Amino acid sequence: MTSARDSLAAWLRDAHAMEGQAETLLSAQIERLQNYPEALPRLRSHLEETKAQRQALERCLEKLGENTSTLKDGTMKMAANLQGWMHALSGDEVLKNTLASAAFEQFEAASYRMLVCAAKIAGEPEIARTCEHIMEQEVSMADWVWSELEPLTEKYLQREMAGMEAKR
Amino acid sequence: MTSARDSLAAWLRDAHAMEGQAETLLSAQIERLQNYPEALPRLRSHLEETKAQRQALERCLEKLGENTSTLKDGTMKMAANLQGWMHALSGDEVLKNTLASAAFEQFEAASYRMLVCAAKIAGEPEIARTCEHIMEQEVSMADWVWSELEPLTEKYLQREMAGMEAKR
Repeated sequence: MTSARDSLAAWLRDAHAMEGQAETLLSAQIERLQNYPEALPRLRSHLEETKAQRQALERCLEKLGENTSTLKDGTMKMAANLQGWMHALSGDEVLKNTLASAAFEQFEAASYRMLVCAAKIAGEPEIARTCEHIMEQEVSMADWVWSELEPLTEKYLQREMAGMEAKR
Repeated sequence: MTSARDSLAAWLRDAHAMEGQAETLLSAQIERLQNYPEALPRLRSHLEETKAQRQALERCLEKLGENTSTLKDGTMKMAANLQGWMHALSGDEVLKNTLASAAFEQFEAASYRMLVCAAKIAGEPEIARTCEHIMEQEVSMADWVWSELEPLTEKYLQREMAGMEAKR
């Protein structure tokens, strides 16, 4: 038998590790983009959001009495499949990266939806509110990636047709 | 210089390979689910949709005069990062699988949005309509996965708290 509180604590640790990955990936994306500067402001603001989210998750774990000094050694049970995205997002092809971002933001949003539910069942309304707020930020980022797909593809193809560097 | 038609053809091949993976993953998920039979009807109907999508993509490629006999050897340039999901979805934990599904459906929907755009630029309105139709099916499936997150998490935690098998 596992209590809802135990699951909540384990999933918060996973989310913390997930945001650590998100930070690395966003930083790499921002550094590599060359011909698509219009995407930079939103990517940079989400990087700042991501850092704040990690801190908020640490406060949630502290509220549960969890030791946050061992966070870096988390096993990422729930987010173990991030390796695939890591790999995808470490490439330099803007369209491939954007597809992977679309998927990654949805993965994050869905993780927080599960966390909101777990926090409510565990009787932790404050943690539920924090996770709901982060979920809304991830949904908003996912919506932005979605809205970028068409203009980005157009620009990419036009650059390719003109014989210009299009991939990054 | 690469023409929009060349990119369109390459991406249609990637989408075809992606749907092949989707078919394998959905079949495996359907087979493994034990304690969540309420999810089976939607998973099964999406499996049928997926098979029809592959055939529709083959017709699009034929329309472009592409040789479809070599489709199985496709390099999946755009979808190379599917290995991560493959791995994630081959596990037997229902919540992990559902998170991966949420991400995968969004990846698929985003791929078709790019394809719609590429087909229009390549002057192929019929292929654009086909890809838009498939995109709508993927968006609908992504919405369903999203709507499942809360009831699924609740049921999972309740089973865990009762000491019952919850993971599959």
